[in-house]
Amino acid sequence: MNGLLTDLYELIMAAGYFAADKQEEIGTFEFTIRRLPRNRDFVLMAGLERALDYLLNLSFQEDEIAYLRGLPQFKNAPAAFWDYLAAFRFSGDVFAVPEGSVIYDGQPVMNVRAPLIEGQIAETYLLSAITFETLIASKAARIVHAAAGRDVVEFGTRRAHTPEAGVQGARAAYIAGCAGTSNTLAGFHYGIPVFGTAAHSWILSFATESEAFDQLQKLLEDKTVQLLDTYNTLDAAKLVGQMGGPLWGVRLDSGNFLELSREVRRILPNAKIMASGDLDETKIAQLLEAGAPIDAFGVGTELAVSADAPSMGAVYKLVEIEHEGKIRYTAKRSPDKATLPGAKQLFRFPEYDLLALHDECAGGAKAMLEPWVLGGQLIRPLPSLEEIRKRAQCGLSQWPQGPRRTEHSLALKELNESLLRH
Amino acid sequence: MNGLLTDLYELIMAAGYFAADKQEEIGTFEFTIRRLPRNRDFVLMAGLERALDYLLNLSFQEDEIAYLRGLPQFKNAPAAFWDYLAAFRFSGDVFAVPEGSVIYDGQPVMNVRAPLIEGQIAETYLLSAITFETLIASKAARIVHAAAGRDVVEFGTRRAHTPEAGVQGARAAYIAGCAGTSNTLAGFHYGIPVFGTAAHSWILSFATESEAFDQLQKLLEDKTVQLLDTYNTLDAAKLVGQMGGPLWGVRLDSGNFLELSREVRRILPNAKIMASGDLDETKIAQLLEAGAPIDAFGVGTELAVSADAPSMGAVYKLVEIEHEGKIRYTAKRSPDKATLPGAKQLFRFPEYDLLALHDECAGGAKAMLEPWVLGGQLIRPLPSLEEIRKRAQCGLSQWPQGPRRTEHSLALKELNESLLRH
Repeated sequence: MNGLLTDLYELIMAAGYFAADKQEEIGTFEFTIRRLPRNRDFVLMAGLERALDYLLNLSFQEDEIAYLRGLPQFKNAPAAFWDYLAAFRFSGDVFAVPEGSVIYDGQPVMNVRAPLIEGQIAETYLLSAITFETLIASKAARIVHAAAGRDVVEFGTRRAHTPEAGVQGARAAYIAGCAGTSNTLAGFHYGIPVFGTAAHSWILSFATESEAFDQLQKLLEDKTVQLLDTYNTLDAAKLVGQMGGPLWGVRLDSGNFLELSREVRRILPNAKIMASGDLDETKIAQLLEAGAPIDAFGVGTELAVSADAPSMGAVYKLVEIEHEGKIRYTAKRSPDKATLPGAKQLFRFPEYDLLALHDECAGGAKAMLEPWVLGGQLIRPLPSLEEIRKRAQCGLSQWPQGPRRTEHSLALKELNESLLRH
Repeated sequence: MNGLLTDLYELIMAAGYFAADKQEEIGTFEFTIRRLPRNRDFVLMAGLERALDYLLNLSFQEDEIAYLRGLPQFKNAPAAFWDYLAAFRFSGDVFAVPEGSVIYDGQPVMNVRAPLIEGQIAETYLLSAITFETLIASKAARIVHAAAGRDVVEFGTRRAHTPEAGVQGARAAYIAGCAGTSNTLAGFHYGIPVFGTAAHSWILSFATESEAFDQLQKLLEDKTVQLLDTYNTLDAAKLVGQMGGPLWGVRLDSGNFLELSREVRRILPNAKIMASGDLDETKIAQLLEAGAPIDAFGVGTELAVSADAPSMGAVYKLVEIEHEGKIRYTAKRSPDKATLPGAKQLFRFPEYDLLALHDECAGGAKAMLEPWVLGGQLIRPLPSLEEIRKRAQCGLSQWPQGPRRTEHSLALKELNESLLRH
């Protein structure tokens, strides 16, 4: 499954490692947040579940192998490589920071220790899967924080980069503290609370707005949220007031939310007010600071694509190779893109973080990279989504988070310098 | 399949339409590019194939229906609604602009004419699938244009919002004129040319850079692209020069591309030079204007997420309802989000476009919205990816494209005004 869902060069390198007789060489690949996304002081780790699922199921089907064999780039690949691919299973170890952890600039979030070929093939998928959910969780954390205790519901699937990405985005947003999602499949798959009532088309489909309101109320009773802005928001609010009956509240989807929420609150003192439509953390904070009586926010576009920072400079780099009992440390020296050699551990002390070699000790610190997969086998149950969400809540409770100091251990510094001297 | 991959409110409205006895009402939903993405004068339509595939396969599984029945929001849904969902198939008509078409501000790209419930459920998926591929195709068109005839290869899967989105992004980029992609699954599924050779980890995995270069050359011969910046770019270029032998060229992945490409060209006069690393259309245009001797570009992040404009204001709105032979036109009046009533056709004249009611004629113009699905059946084969790419090439050949005038027909204006009067 998913064997071809990778960059071609990973597979070419796989063939090349095979041809160069490197099957026995064990590489450690380090997944690092090289640069935080724009406007972020930290990120919230997410996407590990999907990443592990990928590794544990990674394989190549017959027709996929036939496709590769037909590519001119594989003309010189050894015949035995194709048998190798047909039998391919991930056999390595995975250490990673648990989902829901707060992570800072330049910190590693995952080590994949596996035969070079295996670690290499996985690069593309791991980068995308973890980066995406981490991006969305990090954006959602800001939005939830801005809402200052009011519910934020993730409404973004229609803007997500494919509907399927909307499902993963909903998961990431829930980890970061969103109350739920509009994405029904995310509810079905992940047990995330699902929200939503009706759109403008519902109102338009009835001859009158009052009939539309009435029909929705019959269906949803005290879960009814009437959408006010199809024709005229305040007229609609008055109509809702006249109707009485069970109601959760109303939704504003356009116009000046500050003014409208105040007027609607006057008209409907007992209805909850939800606002949606091009909201982000800045607009939410401004509305609340100005005293807008809004009880809940629906956030779509800005959250679904992390609009102010839709990408993040994460890298997956070879840091050491073990072969016949000997370790060779590796690091690239490209300007602005240099990497640090050696398999590492990230230790979290109360006041600062310490990046050290993986076999160092650090009393009183929490080792952030935990083992999940050893020898290709999952070694413990994955945490539930609720556990992950609690971890995030705990980490985010210290908001606002400034940049955090990450020190490098002496041994790491010495290793790096010794490599530089060669 | 995919029945739950939609916003919950679509399914609640579906239950509500059913409860309100609206099964026989036929709605026309119009998918419109309400606002062009930032920095764009047009978009390149893409994503229709996936959208049609969704509609033609849309259904609900037993466990999915059980999930919905368990939600408190469906407590009052009529029992017959669940039988309806179990038997659900899309039975409507789809008119859409062919993929690869150039589309301007405020233009419709799709009409879905179907029983209200069917058209409603499809909203979320259609918005996401079409918007995403259209965004990426539009960004790719700018990058390909900036490269002025040099090859652009899409390298972005690791930055895409999920690895699977990378496959669709690769398709969209190819439609817009990219030479190919690094995404192997996109090659396998769509027959897109695939490119890529080796990463830094390849170089690092060998004891010496020269051994890494040598092994790659053995494997790839005249397709070899040596990556130069792992340690020192110019030293690596000299090494490649000393080695001789078959070679396509070299790749620069960091540093000052203008200076480096000039120096590398001096060292390797016969090698092609590819540049990759944080490139976008602006940087490519600047490099070429300055005379950088670069033969091909690999573009990742900026292309994979359309980084300067990662979302687009596309909407899917109910424009008319037909019931018992009578048509009722619908339009929302929300400030800044008003819509125009009536099923429409977009006519393209040489000098301008005309937005008219769907049954109007316009001699000498091309009707842009073409039928694809009638009564739930695909009525003609979908164009091949190569045909779509040719259409895009043809539309893009008139670059630079300024904003284009879209006039509204008299009948459309009159219909809109008559609705405003009520």
